[in-house]
Amino acid sequence: MLREVLKNLNEGTISLDEAVLEIEGLRIDSVGEIAKLDTGRAVRCGIPEVILAEGKEPAHLAEIAKKQVESGGRCIISRLHPEHAEAVRSLCDSKDVRAAFNESAKMLVLSREGKGEPVKTGGIVGIVTAGTSDIGVAEEARVIAEEMGCTVLTAYDVGAAGIHRLFPAIRDLLDAHVLVVAAGREGTLPAVVAGLVNKPVIGVPVSSGYGYMGQGRAALASMLQSCSVIAVVNIDAGFTAGAFAARIANMVAGP
Amino acid sequence: MLREVLKNLNEGTISLDEAVLEIEGLRIDSVGEIAKLDTGRAVRCGIPEVILAEGKEPAHLAEIAKKQVESGGRCIISRLHPEHAEAVRSLCDSKDVRAAFNESAKMLVLSREGKGEPVKTGGIVGIVTAGTSDIGVAEEARVIAEEMGCTVLTAYDVGAAGIHRLFPAIRDLLDAHVLVVAAGREGTLPAVVAGLVNKPVIGVPVSSGYGYMGQGRAALASMLQSCSVIAVVNIDAGFTAGAFAARIANMVAGP
Amino acid sequence: MLREVLKNLNEGTISLDEAVLEIEGLRIDSVGEIAKLDTGRAVRCGIPEVILAEGKEPAHLAEIAKKQVESGGRCIISRLHPEHAEAVRSLCDSKDVRAAFNESAKMLVLSREGKGEPVKTGGIVGIVTAGTSDIGVAEEARVIAEEMGCTVLTAYDVGAAGIHRLFPAIRDLLDAHVLVVAAGREGTLPAVVAGLVNKPVIGVPVSSGYGYMGQGRAALASMLQSCSVIAVVNIDAGFTAGAFAARIANMVAGP
Amino acid sequence: MLREVLKNLNEGTISLDEAVLEIEGLRIDSVGEIAKLDTGRAVRCGIPEVILAEGKEPAHLAEIAKKQVESGGRCIISRLHPEHAEAVRSLCDSKDVRAAFNESAKMLVLSREGKGEPVKTGGIVGIVTAGTSDIGVAEEARVIAEEMGCTVLTAYDVGAAGIHRLFPAIRDLLDAHVLVVAAGREGTLPAVVAGLVNKPVIGVPVSSGYGYMGQGRAALASMLQSCSVIAVVNIDAGFTAGAFAARIANMVAGP
Amino acid sequence: MLREVLKNLNEGTISLDEAVLEIEGLRIDSVGEIAKLDTGRAVRCGIPEVILAEGKEPAHLAEIAKKQVESGGRCIISRLHPEHAEAVRSLCDSKDVRAAFNESAKMLVLSREGKGEPVKTGGIVGIVTAGTSDIGVAEEARVIAEEMGCTVLTAYDVGAAGIHRLFPAIRDLLDAHVLVVAAGREGTLPAVVAGLVNKPVIGVPVSSGYGYMGQGRAALASMLQSCSVIAVVNIDAGFTAGAFAARIANMVAGP
Amino acid sequence: MLREVLKNLNEGTISLDEAVLEIEGLRIDSVGEIAKLDTGRAVRCGIPEVILAEGKEPAHLAEIAKKQVESGGRCIISRLHPEHAEAVRSLCDSKDVRAAFNESAKMLVLSREGKGEPVKTGGIVGIVTAGTSDIGVAEEARVIAEEMGCTVLTAYDVGAAGIHRLFPAIRDLLDAHVLVVAAGREGTLPAVVAGLVNKPVIGVPVSSGYGYMGQGRAALASMLQSCSVIAVVNIDAGFTAGAFAARIANMVAGP
Amino acid sequence: MLREVLKNLNEGTISLDEAVLEIEGLRIDSVGEIAKLDTGRAVRCGIPEVILAEGKEPAHLAEIAKKQVESGGRCIISRLHPEHAEAVRSLCDSKDVRAAFNESAKMLVLSREGKGEPVKTGGIVGIVTAGTSDIGVAEEARVIAEEMGCTVLTAYDVGAAGIHRLFPAIRDLLDAHVLVVAAGREGTLPAVVAGLVNKPVIGVPVSSGYGYMGQGRAALASMLQSCSVIAVVNIDAGFTAGAFAARIANMVAGP
Amino acid sequence: MLREVLKNLNEGTISLDEAVLEIEGLRIDSVGEIAKLDTGRAVRCGIPEVILAEGKEPAHLAEIAKKQVESGGRCIISRLHPEHAEAVRSLCDSKDVRAAFNESAKMLVLSREGKGEPVKTGGIVGIVTAGTSDIGVAEEARVIAEEMGCTVLTAYDVGAAGIHRLFPAIRDLLDAHVLVVAAGREGTLPAVVAGLVNKPVIGVPVSSGYGYMGQGRAALASMLQSCSVIAVVNIDAGFTAGAFAARIANMVAGP
Repeated sequence: MLREVLKNLNEGTISLDEAVLEIEGLRIDSVGEIAKLDTGRAVRCGIPEVILAEGKEPAHLAEIAKKQVESGGRCIISRLHPEHAEAVRSLCDSKDVRAAFNESAKMLVLSREGKGEPVKTGGIVGIVTAGTSDIGVAEEARVIAEEMGCTVLTAYDVGAAGIHRLFPAIRDLLDAHVLVVAAGREGTLPAVVAGLVNKPVIGVPVSSGYGYMGQGRAALASMLQSCSVIAVVNIDAGFTAGAFAARIANMVAGP
Repeated sequence: MLREVLKNLNEGTISLDEAVLEIEGLRIDSVGEIAKLDTGRAVRCGIPEVILAEGKEPAHLAEIAKKQVESGGRCIISRLHPEHAEAVRSLCDSKDVRAAFNESAKMLVLSREGKGEPVKTGGIVGIVTAGTSDIGVAEEARVIAEEMGCTVLTAYDVGAAGIHRLFPAIRDLLDAHVLVVAAGREGTLPAVVAGLVNKPVIGVPVSSGYGYMGQGRAALASMLQSCSVIAVVNIDAGFTAGAFAARIANMVAGP
Repeated sequence: MLREVLKNLNEGTISLDEAVLEIEGLRIDSVGEIAKLDTGRAVRCGIPEVILAEGKEPAHLAEIAKKQVESGGRCIISRLHPEHAEAVRSLCDSKDVRAAFNESAKMLVLSREGKGEPVKTGGIVGIVTAGTSDIGVAEEARVIAEEMGCTVLTAYDVGAAGIHRLFPAIRDLLDAHVLVVAAGREGTLPAVVAGLVNKPVIGVPVSSGYGYMGQGRAALASMLQSCSVIAVVNIDAGFTAGAFAARIANMVAGP
Repeated sequence: MLREVLKNLNEGTISLDEAVLEIEGLRIDSVGEIAKLDTGRAVRCGIPEVILAEGKEPAHLAEIAKKQVESGGRCIISRLHPEHAEAVRSLCDSKDVRAAFNESAKMLVLSREGKGEPVKTGGIVGIVTAGTSDIGVAEEARVIAEEMGCTVLTAYDVGAAGIHRLFPAIRDLLDAHVLVVAAGREGTLPAVVAGLVNKPVIGVPVSSGYGYMGQGRAALASMLQSCSVIAVVNIDAGFTAGAFAARIANMVAGP
Repeated sequence: MLREVLKNLNEGTISLDEAVLEIEGLRIDSVGEIAKLDTGRAVRCGIPEVILAEGKEPAHLAEIAKKQVESGGRCIISRLHPEHAEAVRSLCDSKDVRAAFNESAKMLVLSREGKGEPVKTGGIVGIVTAGTSDIGVAEEARVIAEEMGCTVLTAYDVGAAGIHRLFPAIRDLLDAHVLVVAAGREGTLPAVVAGLVNKPVIGVPVSSGYGYMGQGRAALASMLQSCSVIAVVNIDAGFTAGAFAARIANMVAGP
Repeated sequence: MLREVLKNLNEGTISLDEAVLEIEGLRIDSVGEIAKLDTGRAVRCGIPEVILAEGKEPAHLAEIAKKQVESGGRCIISRLHPEHAEAVRSLCDSKDVRAAFNESAKMLVLSREGKGEPVKTGGIVGIVTAGTSDIGVAEEARVIAEEMGCTVLTAYDVGAAGIHRLFPAIRDLLDAHVLVVAAGREGTLPAVVAGLVNKPVIGVPVSSGYGYMGQGRAALASMLQSCSVIAVVNIDAGFTAGAFAARIANMVAGP
Repeated sequence: MLREVLKNLNEGTISLDEAVLEIEGLRIDSVGEIAKLDTGRAVRCGIPEVILAEGKEPAHLAEIAKKQVESGGRCIISRLHPEHAEAVRSLCDSKDVRAAFNESAKMLVLSREGKGEPVKTGGIVGIVTAGTSDIGVAEEARVIAEEMGCTVLTAYDVGAAGIHRLFPAIRDLLDAHVLVVAAGREGTLPAVVAGLVNKPVIGVPVSSGYGYMGQGRAALASMLQSCSVIAVVNIDAGFTAGAFAARIANMVAGP
Repeated sequence: MLREVLKNLNEGTISLDEAVLEIEGLRIDSVGEIAKLDTGRAVRCGIPEVILAEGKEPAHLAEIAKKQVESGGRCIISRLHPEHAEAVRSLCDSKDVRAAFNESAKMLVLSREGKGEPVKTGGIVGIVTAGTSDIGVAEEARVIAEEMGCTVLTAYDVGAAGIHRLFPAIRDLLDAHVLVVAAGREGTLPAVVAGLVNKPVIGVPVSSGYGYMGQGRAALASMLQSCSVIAVVNIDAGFTAGAFAARIANMVAGP
């Protein structure tokens, strides 16, 4: 667009003053572009925006979702409460929209046919949970990783029945480029897994457990204090863990 | 003594009013006796009183220590700072007093010869530490357990070099009646050990670790939240863990 | 099974390479076995697995419970909410299953006739509560202790009416090998009891009390800070306290 | 002074306008007076101002102290560090000034002879401590109570050696109108005392104890959560407890 | 009773051995008596027991209440939820029982006619609240103070409309022997009041206020940190404040 | 009034004693006046009182509201729950009362016609929110700023879609004298805005965000720790931020 | 500069491609400019950068300071520890540099003669402290406000001696456009002041006070919870409060 | 070794029973091997063990270090205090040992010549700091990343001088495979960077900042709450961040 302005100036169709004004205008707009220094990559392996339904008014959510599906072809909604589901029902029933609802993750993906389906990247993300109560958070990680083009391998509930069940489960995930490990209560599984495999391990504390430092806080604390090399996300932040893992997996798998 | 009063009354050497007064006096005194319902056992396997030096003025400490050695034959002092050591030096140099100082535990045991030495009970306490920084707390547990007549088996620094070094270490402690496991940072070792052996495991959080929930708080949290069946004591409370363990070991070993 | 492979090798029915492969496979499997170094004891006095209903989807819970009853003959479920009770009702109504529901503890024990009933070990666990609000937690401890074969003696609500009611209550529990003491608010009862008797005392903070450090946190704090020798479990962790106590009682009572 | 203005007006020495101006001025000044609605009582049983040395620059402290001694005849300084002591030394050496330093309480009372000595009120304050580490805080309470004219009865270190030593100690304090009970670690002594006697009991948490909720926080929590009827002051706030107690004692003893 | 045993012994109707056994029995029972060293005063100005309904099962509550009314003639219940009210309705409808329900305080007092009504002691308690949200807590204090025989003066909502409305309100309370001041949010009213009057002031933090340190925690903190001499009770602990104040008022008013 | 008393005295219609008494009475009353040193300004640009409905009983609220509308002509109610709305409905339906309900802010403004409408001051307040969940809090700020006579410019949801959308939004607010910036979760928008513009920026943490330090606490922390020069109000305290901003804007715009 | 490029293009001295490249380059650079949308104002009333010495290595600090003095003519350093003072001594001794050290604030201002001295803006900032321990923080606010061209009025230690000394002190500050009020312990002074005057009041919690919520945290909490309309900065953040206040004062005083 | 046993059995040099015993022995030993399922990768790109000097006794540290250098050829020590440096000095002075001390990171790397030098992997790690106080933590990350074979690009102190200095700095790091961003106080830089580039960003909170949530806690909170997709490590955990980043970089760069 700059080139156009300059051409016009060069060809005399606009004055120098007009050129200055138009280019000054461009400078403001260009902040956005510059702000994304690495736009080329963003298109290829970027993280799709996710709408946090929780705390939004249903009508408001529906409006945003509709706009996103129309413009970008895809809309991913997390922490969908029943009143939100109701509000976006008409969108889901629309003929040319694929609506995939993951009940455990409470996530809904809307995508227009022929647009917005993720392209497989070759990235592989492994997701492990300590118990069955951690599955909702793990599924949130799975949905976003799959929407980012990754293949997801899972091993759920491997911590509950003793360490001997953990070993074969981990073996099944050795093809993954990166592991997400979700655990509540004392939250030690990520550190144990990181001690067994040579992959980056991302710990997700889960808000289970009662009493002192319950609701995931003990899990967060023990993950941050761990002697093992792991990185951590917020309590219940399945989305962040999944997106972070997919970003790594896509880089490793990438051309 | 009651019997004596009654005899005197019966024999007419004291009046009924005098008897009432004396027995009322006994009633006050008897609260102490009654308060220790189980005195017989206390003598056999009781927990010796320990003086916490920390926070006491050195002169004050020396005075208490002297009195205890004289009356009970033994005095156990914990958290001894250099200024305290200085204050009790003359006691230590006394001829008929055995003075055993455990530098790592910062504990000093003074006992008069022929009195105050612990009698072996047959109880066996196993003490495990995750790292080398946990040894001071573990030694505090060891000193008190030995003073309570137990044999102590130790396996220190078994958590640092990976889980594979833990297995043989634990095997060496299988003769113990009860295990004390000290661990700082994320503090997961007690739960791991409790999942491997069928002994009561007492976790001691150690005030190592920096940053969020450092100084033993993450360890305390993860021990309390643990799915394994363990009991916990305060951060750095090696004395409490050792005494609690010795009490159990002595009961199991007891006649 | 190893012996079988070796026999086959010795007898020439398999080649040396095949033997190596099969034994390598066994090595992986053997981790599980090795992980339980002390299996013999586990069978005799081990802690039965307990399913935490809270946080589990009812259908999921019913499925796990059914599987456990079928395979192990017994299934213990804690923190059962009404929706869970509904989900396992059909299991309870099954003819050959004993279903014992402790309403106060919110625990359900399912066991197949002729299987899964606990065998009396001779272990005796005493359970004390400060007030009536602590009884639910105490009953959780009682259920698991009884399922582990112990006889349970209780003294509930002994703290509310002043220290003079405590003395006779404690006398009734002197036969116990170990005491569980549950208390909310300021949580001082475990320390008081530990000062009176020569038994291991396990404190359970109960989530009663409002205002500053309410919901059991003041109780946890005062138990951990106590000068008395007590061990502590998480707030409301009746199950952990009961299982820990039963483990000790069974060892003391054991052959 | 108002009366004087009015007289002057009445006698014609000032005009009405002048009277209005002067009285308006008095109104501003009178805020101070009014702010102390109960001035009469303040003189009789009020709480003397205490200067907190901690955090003040020594030179600054000395200046304030000098001014107070000169104007009011008495100056009470708390939390005196060595550098402060040095700064006020010349004041102490002054001939007509009584300088009483309580080392344990780290408090210094300066009073000019014939002025500033407290007059006995008949109020009796009892001060109890659980251990020897609580004595400094207790002495702070004692100094201020005595400066407010009370007689102080003390029973120190009654909690350390078991409940049976507590009973006779409490008996010695039954003449007190009100009790201050200082305790660190789990801080249960005030509640126990309040359950034994029918006097107002004021609990002072003391910053002893290490680990979780150490430094007096567990003590504060358990005092606030207590089922007994006690009132509480800040951790280590011996001055506040002593002054509050003396105020009550003086009212009860008062004419 | 002791005298009787001794008489019997003296008269030969029981043997010395029988006397010893009976007196030993008395010694156990006497702990209770001794535990209340000051029984005489307890009868005159003691604090009646209050049942905390919150956390109790309604049926359980009704049973305790019935027993108390029958034995002691009076029963005071606090934090009464609707389901509790329902459970004790039949008690309230009983002909010879006075049932006084304070809706704001959520307290119910049941007393049998001719028994259990409080006798006026002459003690006067002033109760002040900063806002209207603090009235429930203040009324809890009022109910217990009145049940302890005090006259209660109140000044509610004096903090909301600026400090100029505070002065006349305080003047109306100058006859009180002691003041209870309830305040939420920043909780500064108790300190302000304590700076104006020469009465003991007891601060009650109220669980109002949102955001950081809301729910009474900021109020608790600022009361404990206050430079004014005030004593504090737990957040929302109207009962404790009222009983503590009444105890003081009764002592000051007492013979 | 003082002048009148003095005249009467001067003219002999009252005695000197009577004058003293009357003027003393005035002195008490005058505290109120004096307490507002700057009354003239208060009338011109003061902050109207706002009633916090939350925590008040509906009937109580209605009564207060009615009184305020009658006396002052205007009543502003915040945090209106449905039961409160019901209670004040009749007031709203009154013919001569303007009732403006801002649903998002949950605020209701009642004003009598011809009285209580705000007069435009020329002050301009800009209000920015990071996301859509922050709008309720922002609207609370808007309502009070408008009631204080300010013009309000808003830029909502500028933080969600990346920093490039922020720049043009901020440009639209450059006419404002002061900015209120509301943000939840990590709460960094106020600091970013303060780095871009040379206006006072007031940060309002919003109680969104889950997990560790959720519910606005992380936002509060990062605003207080910010290197940018911003001032902060309590979590969700839209009213305080709006009133504080309006006060500044009115001063800048003022004559 | 853009205009130049365009001229060159227009005049044919550069090609269109060269113009595109140069303007793209400008676009990157222009982000900085755009980032400061309001540069004109920044020059007139902006906040000078302040270097936080604390946490910086002395040599590093000296280097930064030297560079700043050379380039901008002025350098303001806060929280200067003795080792820092030593490191910048040579700078201070330089002939053409004015070095103003405020010992109480621990701030050092270096400015080259004829450059860097602040120009009086007409803005007036009032600074109030509750006690003498708050003066250091207040002086930090004063230094920065003066460096921003404001006149500063102070009233220190007005809270310590009772509310009656506060009124005249506040009267002296009524000329200020804005007030900074620093207070530790319970931190109520800012709210009290805000209730008296119609100026924006900025509260600064000061890290004095011991025990529960000491070190300024109670003060922060009570300021945030206050019913008065005040804004708050971080504990001890005198610099932030002073700069924020000066910004407002300069706007009000500004042309 | 297994193959050897089997051969011996096959060749008749050992009996079947002997073979069983020897293989059972191997099974125990094999746990270690199995525990590292992925040994091949460990050799190639594993994380070297790092010794935390802090909290270790100097003599102890020296001993461990010596053993590591001898056996593995390299020893990395972190958080080296002066007393530790003294203890390992003789090691450093040894002829065939390369001793590299990074003063800012307080890390020491010892390696025997010809052994232990890292081999370049092609992985590139970018490290960014907000201020100069964050450099120590960043250098800790750099040392470990370089020891793991990565090239490290750094951009320090880019957050202090405004967002416009950040853009060019980030551009210089676009070749990195992963970014570590260290920031104290409000800790927002990692989120800002993650919004600009399409690389995995690991946030390290740094323990700078005073007052509320200072010492890195506000930074940790805002990183965990961030809407940007970042992963986090413990406060000051430069080592963990560097090792985690290097692991990713090595995978992306790997064959």
